[in-house]
Amino acid sequence: MKTPLYTALSQHAEKKPYSFHVPGHHNGDVFFDEARSDYASILQLDVTELEGLDDLHHPTGVIQEAEDLLAKLYGAKQSFFLVNGTTVGNLAMVMAACRTEDEIFVQRNCHKSVFHAIELAGATPIMLETDIDPYLHVPTHVTDETVKKAIAKHPNCRAIVLTYPNYYGHAADLSKLIHMCHEAGMIVLVDEAHGAHFVLGGAFPPSALSYGADVVVQSAHKTLPAMTMGSYLHLQGDRIDVKRLKSLLTMLQSSSPSYPIMASLDVARAYVEEIKGKGELDGIMTGLAKLKEQFNRMSHLEVVESDSLFTDPLKCVIRSTKGLTGYELKKVLESVDVHPELADEHQVLLVFGLGQTKDVPFSAIEQVLQQSDVMLEKKEHLQKGTPSIEVDQQRQDIEAVPFEKAAGRIIAESVIPYPPGIPLMIKGECIEADQISTLSRLLGHHVHVQASQVIHQRKLYVYIEEETL
Amino acid sequence: MKTPLYTALSQHAEKKPYSFHVPGHHNGDVFFDEARSDYASILQLDVTELEGLDDLHHPTGVIQEAEDLLAKLYGAKQSFFLVNGTTVGNLAMVMAACRTEDEIFVQRNCHKSVFHAIELAGATPIMLETDIDPYLHVPTHVTDETVKKAIAKHPNCRAIVLTYPNYYGHAADLSKLIHMCHEAGMIVLVDEAHGAHFVLGGAFPPSALSYGADVVVQSAHKTLPAMTMGSYLHLQGDRIDVKRLKSLLTMLQSSSPSYPIMASLDVARAYVEEIKGKGELDGIMTGLAKLKEQFNRMSHLEVVESDSLFTDPLKCVIRSTKGLTGYELKKVLESVDVHPELADEHQVLLVFGLGQTKDVPFSAIEQVLQQSDVMLEKKEHLQKGTPSIEVDQQRQDIEAVPFEKAAGRIIAESVIPYPPGIPLMIKGECIEADQISTLSRLLGHHVHVQASQVIHQRKLYVYIEEETL
Ligand SMILES: Cc1ncc(COP(=O)(O)O)c(C=O)c1O
Ligand SMILES: Cc1ncc(COP(=O)(O)O)c(C=O)c1O
Repeated sequence: MKTPLYTALSQHAEKKPYSFHVPGHHNGDVFFDEARSDYASILQLDVTELEGLDDLHHPTGVIQEAEDLLAKLYGAKQSFFLVNGTTVGNLAMVMAACRTEDEIFVQRNCHKSVFHAIELAGATPIMLETDIDPYLHVPTHVTDETVKKAIAKHPNCRAIVLTYPNYYGHAADLSKLIHMCHEAGMIVLVDEAHGAHFVLGGAFPPSALSYGADVVVQSAHKTLPAMTMGSYLHLQGDRIDVKRLKSLLTMLQSSSPSYPIMASLDVARAYVEEIKGKGELDGIMTGLAKLKEQFNRMSHLEVVESDSLFTDPLKCVIRSTKGLTGYELKKVLESVDVHPELADEHQVLLVFGLGQTKDVPFSAIEQVLQQSDVMLEKKEHLQKGTPSIEVDQQRQDIEAVPFEKAAGRIIAESVIPYPPGIPLMIKGECIEADQISTLSRLLGHHVHVQASQVIHQRKLYVYIEEETL
Repeated sequence: MKTPLYTALSQHAEKKPYSFHVPGHHNGDVFFDEARSDYASILQLDVTELEGLDDLHHPTGVIQEAEDLLAKLYGAKQSFFLVNGTTVGNLAMVMAACRTEDEIFVQRNCHKSVFHAIELAGATPIMLETDIDPYLHVPTHVTDETVKKAIAKHPNCRAIVLTYPNYYGHAADLSKLIHMCHEAGMIVLVDEAHGAHFVLGGAFPPSALSYGADVVVQSAHKTLPAMTMGSYLHLQGDRIDVKRLKSLLTMLQSSSPSYPIMASLDVARAYVEEIKGKGELDGIMTGLAKLKEQFNRMSHLEVVESDSLFTDPLKCVIRSTKGLTGYELKKVLESVDVHPELADEHQVLLVFGLGQTKDVPFSAIEQVLQQSDVMLEKKEHLQKGTPSIEVDQQRQDIEAVPFEKAAGRIIAESVIPYPPGIPLMIKGECIEADQISTLSRLLGHHVHVQASQVIHQRKLYVYIEEETL
């Protein structure tokens, strides 16, 4: 299996070279002793743009080769390694597609990085509401009908940005929607943060690339074996200005990109190819199904299936059958060092690996679930909410109003439960009563919410209306 | 020595937790086999925002503690860990300081990230020329006189951005300059990418913080033992809008920041404190001086000192006494696996470590230097330039003109020799004849230049003038 970048790096390390260059650990020679054993081997690969190791921002050698192999695997016209997460991919694609005041359609449950991108681009977002999954109670996807109406109302809209799949693995058929958008002259941008593994095919949903999206960004680190902050960006067709996109990626990512992260993107691609080449997918699928079944069979737990045409077999939603909230169930699992991805009011989301081999400590889980009544009583001890800390500056244009008086006002900052990082309220939107009750419930559950401190006094920052200024 | 973040991470790893969360390698359980031995130990620390591990974007726990220790050590009002290099620090500080069309003074030899920042902010750069070091032939710093004149001409300028020290370790006394700028109502932003270790004191130059700069960004990864992409941002006083700065850092960095990088920033701070606490600085200084002396004593080499009040003892500039260019000398060293930081036409820059212990292969260097006549004859074989690849889109407003006809035209893209990444020509500037001859010489030396392919046909992209459109 070819891994041009990883191979070049490891050949460099094998020569035991002498470093008179940055980084300052000099291949690990200089380091804090107590942390040495954890870091030593990776520091051999943590180098800079040395001869033969290419340059992410102008690749012509091993990085170019590695990106070409990536594009080939994903069927893209061109693919890029990202070292600043899907965040930077979202920023660059939106800023490449839209100039100041261009209209852009945005799926309402997009990740905050998409809203940041629109703010930086100075574009005008047009929100598109999504369906709700009746079983999981979470936002899913934008319907074709919604997009059709939006196009009729905003015929000059420049682009659309979609999230596919959603955090829980729900994947809609995007073919008709993308076709409509292209017909209307729009660029289709897809945040596929949770779908880098869809390229494996089989029971995994199709990638948005196969539906014809123009730009697709994937957090390789989320579902493939890559290091955190490693993502992929793929493009096809010629609707996007490639030069501008590349230039934005260079502007928004460090001029010293991390080689360990880039090489992990190279080996993650090789890992996927190996599964395909060796025909290991069936075995992995069987393993995933078995794992899900094992959770479903546990006392006081059930696996919840979504109302979806396609769902991602790497995602598994479990619920307590004894009345624990998702937050409580998560604490229970964590007490035996089993760490889920996230919890919401109803359930807990588990992310499975592509071929995990480590034994799940089912008996410890079973045991602690048996005691979850006791856990429930200890609620107070378990739920140590981490309050948000951002404090307000002396601003003249905003004021903090109590929850009871906030409905109908314009919110002055986004309010973002984290994870998943999808805004509950978006800066500039008119606050709705049910958003306030949701926030109130989340705070009651001690959920970590990114917003100003005042939410803990049950207040929200809103813009002072003109007449009262 | 306290290392709150690293300690929390390693305690988490010691529990051998089960991961049902991202990243997709699940603590290293899932990984490409051939790369496993390099990555296994670091993957234990490559986790996500789990309970007790805090959140870089809203720190209230161990990351907050680690940042507080950092601020205390550097004497800053507040300090931040960055995971997207000094690049993101430069972007955020400039975008926080300037709005569209604000004027900003820029030291002409700033890093490209500063120019990108100004472009993204939509601010108007006013270039400040620098002195030139007569011995090293490289740009150094802006004089007080230059700034005084600039203020007289642009009394409403909003901010100034300086690079301190320069790449070669030249550090000027900034006290008067910063005082003048503050008097004129300006915010002082300093790119101290190469000065994270100045906090050690002794023979190291003072930090720009001690001269009163408002915001200072440092590539911890360059001169401290931290992983690549790890940087620090410090602020003091109240001239900068902290809320806006923080919000930009959140917008421009991945929502999944790398824990290995963040923890390496924590241990790099501890490493510095330990040197101070244990009084090891003198020993390190002696080691650095000895190393420089050893290079100076080698046949066919000399150490060149700069014309500077303060120079950084971690930087060492060497030159061939046999007429090799810096580029050729670098190739000679690389042929025995000794890797310098960079070369220019005249010399090679070495970056020493803060306490390197690995033996320098002096006898191999000596031997290859003896043969450098032979090397000179093999020039053609050694110099495999890496051409830039960016190709042009069908743009109507620019044209490629031959070098001979380019002087006096407006350049349509920045031309950046890399390293060091300091633009030779900046997009929008009028091209000067001596810039063209420099570019011509650099290309003759097969230096890696970030720009469009056409430079290899001895052409430059310039804007088509209005009358010819
Ligand atoms: C849907 C979605 N988009 C984008 C992101 C941001 O990606 P990253 O964390 O890789 O920067 C996330 C991360 O949580 C996400 O869930
Ligand atoms: C002076 C200067 N500023 C900024 C940067 C960018 O920093 P980073 O590579 O940490 O993103 C560099 C890197 O080479 C630099 O030399």
